[in-house]
Amino acid sequence: MIVGNQHYRSIWFDEQSQHVKIIDQRWLPHRFSIVELTNRDAFIAAIGDMWVRGAPLIGATAAYAFYVQMTKDPSHQSLDQTYDILLATRPTAVNLQWALNDMRALLAPLPEGERPEAALTRARQICEQDVECNRMIGVHGLTLIKKIAAHKNPFEPVNILTHCNAGWLATVDWGTATSPIYHAVQEDIGVHIYVDETRPRNQGAQLTAWELAQQNISHQLIVDNAGGHFMQQGDIDLVITGTDRTTGSGDVCNKIGTYLKALAAHDNNIPFYVALPSTTIDWSLSDGIAQIPIEQRDGLEVTKIWGKLGDGSVAQVQICPDNTPVANPAFDVTPARLVTGLITERGICDASKQGLRELFPEFSHD
Amino acid sequence: MIVGNQHYRSIWFDEQSQHVKIIDQRWLPHRFSIVELTNRDAFIAAIGDMWVRGAPLIGATAAYAFYVQMTKDPSHQSLDQTYDILLATRPTAVNLQWALNDMRALLAPLPEGERPEAALTRARQICEQDVECNRMIGVHGLTLIKKIAAHKNPFEPVNILTHCNAGWLATVDWGTATSPIYHAVQEDIGVHIYVDETRPRNQGAQLTAWELAQQNISHQLIVDNAGGHFMQQGDIDLVITGTDRTTGSGDVCNKIGTYLKALAAHDNNIPFYVALPSTTIDWSLSDGIAQIPIEQRDGLEVTKIWGKLGDGSVAQVQICPDNTPVANPAFDVTPARLVTGLITERGICDASKQGLRELFPEFSHD
Repeated sequence: MIVGNQHYRSIWFDEQSQHVKIIDQRWLPHRFSIVELTNRDAFIAAIGDMWVRGAPLIGATAAYAFYVQMTKDPSHQSLDQTYDILLATRPTAVNLQWALNDMRALLAPLPEGERPEAALTRARQICEQDVECNRMIGVHGLTLIKKIAAHKNPFEPVNILTHCNAGWLATVDWGTATSPIYHAVQEDIGVHIYVDETRPRNQGAQLTAWELAQQNISHQLIVDNAGGHFMQQGDIDLVITGTDRTTGSGDVCNKIGTYLKALAAHDNNIPFYVALPSTTIDWSLSDGIAQIPIEQRDGLEVTKIWGKLGDGSVAQVQICPDNTPVANPAFDVTPARLVTGLITERGICDASKQGLRELFPEFSHD
Repeated sequence: MIVGNQHYRSIWFDEQSQHVKIIDQRWLPHRFSIVELTNRDAFIAAIGDMWVRGAPLIGATAAYAFYVQMTKDPSHQSLDQTYDILLATRPTAVNLQWALNDMRALLAPLPEGERPEAALTRARQICEQDVECNRMIGVHGLTLIKKIAAHKNPFEPVNILTHCNAGWLATVDWGTATSPIYHAVQEDIGVHIYVDETRPRNQGAQLTAWELAQQNISHQLIVDNAGGHFMQQGDIDLVITGTDRTTGSGDVCNKIGTYLKALAAHDNNIPFYVALPSTTIDWSLSDGIAQIPIEQRDGLEVTKIWGKLGDGSVAQVQICPDNTPVANPAFDVTPARLVTGLITERGICDASKQGLRELFPEFSHD
């Protein structure tokens, strides 16, 4: 998507320098910083410390990590180690595991000498697939927005609430939840986005608000507490979120707080959709609440908030007493019964085993 | 309650200086600051800019404002002006209006010379009544905690989630939602409190966490997004919140985000109680969502967060891009159907016209 006047992806292989480059998202929106990831440790830090985040982008980044590591040490041991170390960086998103399995399965049978080039080719393919996949999510999701627009006064925008950042910064391009929005804008359908700030890391305030401003899309930042109120007041037509892992039965694991918005949407008869590439589906699971491991992150994410000081420098402020004990789960699970539908690259389906089976017969087994 | 080793109230008349003193809550938890309010403008700032907050404390502060103003100008015009100006400071809490009506009705018939002393006496009475009222809320609410404790392993605490600060800092003493907790601790019943940070102003992180730490009560700070997840996981036994205005039909207007926690409690069969002095009930209303005016506050509360820098100084950081548009409603309404019960100074009742009528027959009319 657009930053300033230029088109960017969130990760790319720079032909000139022959290095993998990413947008270091930790400094957004205050600084737009591009960094090269030149060794495995850098990739581990980039994923674990969230220089990049978002399930699809984590998968793409992990794929490139194999490439860089294979250029340094293409041995079988190095392959296995890379797999294990990367797998441990983030436990919840299933795309990471998907990309790791894909890369290892491709590379393991190859002679060591062929591994670097094969890894690069495959990492690039994964990125292209991600872009195409998210484009198709947008094409399908657009039909929902069009339908709502058709029932509204033509001068009123379609009001959409989103949680966290499931934007192009969470993928390689387009985003998942934002792709239908970006497609609607391209077709001149008026939209207005309510952006949940998404504590503790404020990805809504830092990333989604920034993305939408860069594309010139009407939006308002709200605290995570406010979405229910706006739904009650009739101010929201549609909720679209992303997901980090969705079970084969349609339970949606996503950024902490998503469940609360789904409850509010349900209570107010507002459609609640989840946009996802099928790589995010964990076909082996049928009960999200019982089976999906929820990442517990550092309490400092809650007690200290990053932002820009009056002088333009970036700093963190502590919002509570010293030594306040904290619990900081990063994700929650929205049961399928609260999800109106899943927007995938193949179309929209019910959040159910049956619904998913119809779109993805090759993955569905009884 | 206790601060350091000393007992404090949130507002008091200092006999020595003959001035009204408050804890300036804007600087908590980083600074414990006591200020004198010596003229009407100071009271207006104290209420409007939230040096004091919490429906009961706002009412008590407004009562003292009349006293201070009457010592300067006890005229009828001054009385009416004070009423109007104070009424405009905060639109949602009904205690403010209650206190204003009470003071004006008392003072208007009196000769000007008697007004200052009568105002002081009445303001003190209002404070004493508030303390006694909140003590009784604690006595009644304690029965709920005892009942839950009786069904748990004796070594497991009763896990209680609370939103915002309905603690002693929101009242004159004891608090509303915290009063049952403080009473439980006095009876050696183990409790553990999940403290919602309560964006945008972080009163949970700044005030409730501080209060609980001062009284040495086990607690964890969580982001507002996390409560639903903990409820799903069986980590919460009981939710208690305060309220800024409750309708005669039991709809509860409280800090933004309360509705989302009530939905989650309902979805997980967790009792959701609201603690309130009866002065918080607006008997004239029967539909909270349609009838209660929701205060819209400055967007800067959302975009900029106060806290302590590494060097100990207090500053604010901006968490989003420059010029991000914001919507900032301060309260939401939880429909009575989601409220398990109301804990009042007279006992616990259903959140319904019928339930309230039984406890408060003198206010209930068909």
